[in-house]
Amino acid sequence: MAERQRADARRNYAHILAVATAEVAAHGANASLEQIARLAGVGSATVRRHFPTRRALLEAVSRERIEALCRRAQELSEQDSQHAVVDWLGELVGYCVSARGLAAALAYDAEAVRAHESTCSATVAEAAEPLLRRAIRERWVPPGLTVADLITLAVGIALATEEHPDPAGQADRLLRLAVTGLGPPR
Amino acid sequence: MAERQRADARRNYAHILAVATAEVAAHGANASLEQIARLAGVGSATVRRHFPTRRALLEAVSRERIEALCRRAQELSEQDSQHAVVDWLGELVGYCVSARGLAAALAYDAEAVRAHESTCSATVAEAAEPLLRRAIRERWVPPGLTVADLITLAVGIALATEEHPDPAGQADRLLRLAVTGLGPPR
Repeated sequence: MAERQRADARRNYAHILAVATAEVAAHGANASLEQIARLAGVGSATVRRHFPTRRALLEAVSRERIEALCRRAQELSEQDSQHAVVDWLGELVGYCVSARGLAAALAYDAEAVRAHESTCSATVAEAAEPLLRRAIRERWVPPGLTVADLITLAVGIALATEEHPDPAGQADRLLRLAVTGLGPPR
Repeated sequence: MAERQRADARRNYAHILAVATAEVAAHGANASLEQIARLAGVGSATVRRHFPTRRALLEAVSRERIEALCRRAQELSEQDSQHAVVDWLGELVGYCVSARGLAAALAYDAEAVRAHESTCSATVAEAAEPLLRRAIRERWVPPGLTVADLITLAVGIALATEEHPDPAGQADRLLRLAVTGLGPPR
């Protein structure tokens, strides 16, 4: 019986998550939690039990992309360090622009930091840390740079280009600016 | 009599704007329009008559800073073009981070563009255009760069650092990254 209850709970969770994923894709990070509960055929309290905060919901919706970004950081460790960091940052920006809700899930969360909770931003930062350390050691990037800086930059680019007629194109312009800098062409 | 009515209307507008400025400073771009009406002692319809959209309100609240940014662009035309662009971008980011509501007022507004309305972003872009054109001519910045790119970048930096414990410090880190780029130190 306990076995069946656990199976029910898992199905319930998977169903709510699927509905939430579709709603965030359609309406972005501010998708209505009430609407998600209605479409999933459960009460708001059930949604809140699985996802106590909007951030928790957005992190769950973004899980596959978070994992993909961590995997890519590992794969890129074979490349030379400069291209590895630039390529990874490009993928980070691309994901933030195309996957609605991801930028909000990765955005700095003062509350989570105060509560010492682990965030998906910390997970991504940990995975990309070796790439950046290597690039700093080889003097390909400024020494004080952190993965948190790169994540904040990607989040900012995604948020600022959201309403543009061509978000991906505009995000790419800003990314190239940040990569080459404002000085004369090298 | 018409004279006195106009004077009343001006006082009314100035009073609502002062209240709105304080509310946006306290609560940011999403300050409640109802609360502004209540504190100003007028009906919501009066607030909406003066400021038909939230954007119009934020632009009015930000007017002095917009004018200051335009003035700075003119003053900086005396400096060498590289420092002029970098300094002006620094002031733009600084204003966006410290003046709540300004980033939202400057953010790309698809509706205003569709309606061919002039925006404060266009006003700022026009004022800074000569600076950037000169820097491009002297090959200090990448040739395809536009003032709109710089404004979008500043808006993104402000939005992404809003929740950080030290928004100005974090914004400055990102600004320096965008100015120097990701390559090896020059």
